[in-house]
Amino acid sequence: MATPPLAAVLLVLLVVCAAFPSSHPLALGLESPPAAEAAAASSPFDAALAALEKRIGYGFRSPGLLRRSMTHASYSRENGRALAVLGLACAQSAAALRVLAADRDAAASAVSRGTRDAAGEAACAAAGQRVGIPSIVRVAGGTKASAAPVVCGALRALVGAVALDNGTADAAGEVFWRLHDLAAAESATAAM
Amino acid sequence: MATPPLAAVLLVLLVVCAAFPSSHPLALGLESPPAAEAAAASSPFDAALAALEKRIGYGFRSPGLLRRSMTHASYSRENGRALAVLGLACAQSAAALRVLAADRDAAASAVSRGTRDAAGEAACAAAGQRVGIPSIVRVAGGTKASAAPVVCGALRALVGAVALDNGTADAAGEVFWRLHDLAAAESATAAM
Repeated sequence: MATPPLAAVLLVLLVVCAAFPSSHPLALGLESPPAAEAAAASSPFDAALAALEKRIGYGFRSPGLLRRSMTHASYSRENGRALAVLGLACAQSAAALRVLAADRDAAASAVSRGTRDAAGEAACAAAGQRVGIPSIVRVAGGTKASAAPVVCGALRALVGAVALDNGTADAAGEVFWRLHDLAAAESATAAM
Repeated sequence: MATPPLAAVLLVLLVVCAAFPSSHPLALGLESPPAAEAAAASSPFDAALAALEKRIGYGFRSPGLLRRSMTHASYSRENGRALAVLGLACAQSAAALRVLAADRDAAASAVSRGTRDAAGEAACAAAGQRVGIPSIVRVAGGTKASAAPVVCGALRALVGAVALDNGTADAAGEVFWRLHDLAAAESATAAM
């Protein structure tokens, strides 16, 4: 053949790259999971993480952060505790912002209460239950995956993981509200 | 004249609008104060607020929020307390995000400590002093404008005011870091 081998290999690579462009994490639609998801779903835990990504409407650039968020301190020293500190702060700022956006003249006590109600442990554990965290989060044998502190910690870690993955507190706030509203909608349906 | 009066008036209005386009708050450069600033600087307090806007590099769409942030509870029932609750949460999420962005493997205790160091009262009051809050914030006669809780409260209210004015926690985080870095740079200069 007239074409040198190296050039031929480069040409094939070019065609392959053009045919399968990598999807941007932020552009991830709920209906179209990225190629990485199918490739990574090589264990039940991976499959659960992929389903969770779809449920929260956010695709991770660094899937390692998602894994960490769904890992309790009893299971591994590499866990979601540090991410949960960040996630709580992001949830609190999103909640305080929503209270004041709805009423600019809200009193400081109303902002504090609204923030506690939306970002506190009770709401946080409820949202985590609804999104299925107890069946995803990895815990050690003696730890109950459905205990409120475990579920809430994992949910906050998930919110923090989004912030760190995306580099913005607002992206984390968006996911926080999606989880919160999802929980509220399911509660309303259950009450009917 | 052949032109009807209404059309002539509309034409003049069109020319005036084209000649003096209103500047978008987000597009406010540090060197070019918006037309609204000069118009609003009808009191020493207004002039101080306009100077503060330039110093923090953010022009308010709703100047009323800036006024409130620089008003202590001892001065008026319309004050910055509620905004400070929001500002603290935004500062904490920005600080936690920076710690983890610098070291993804940071321990939860390091994230908490880093957040406390950057967003806590000592750093907050120092940043507020450097940006000149004691000479801007409005307090009642018996209240000391340079007291740490007053200065820190006003600084947090300013950060919260940016979040509410802009609708995003990230815009508040940016202003928070600008104030923080400004204070750090001035401390370094003073130490030389």
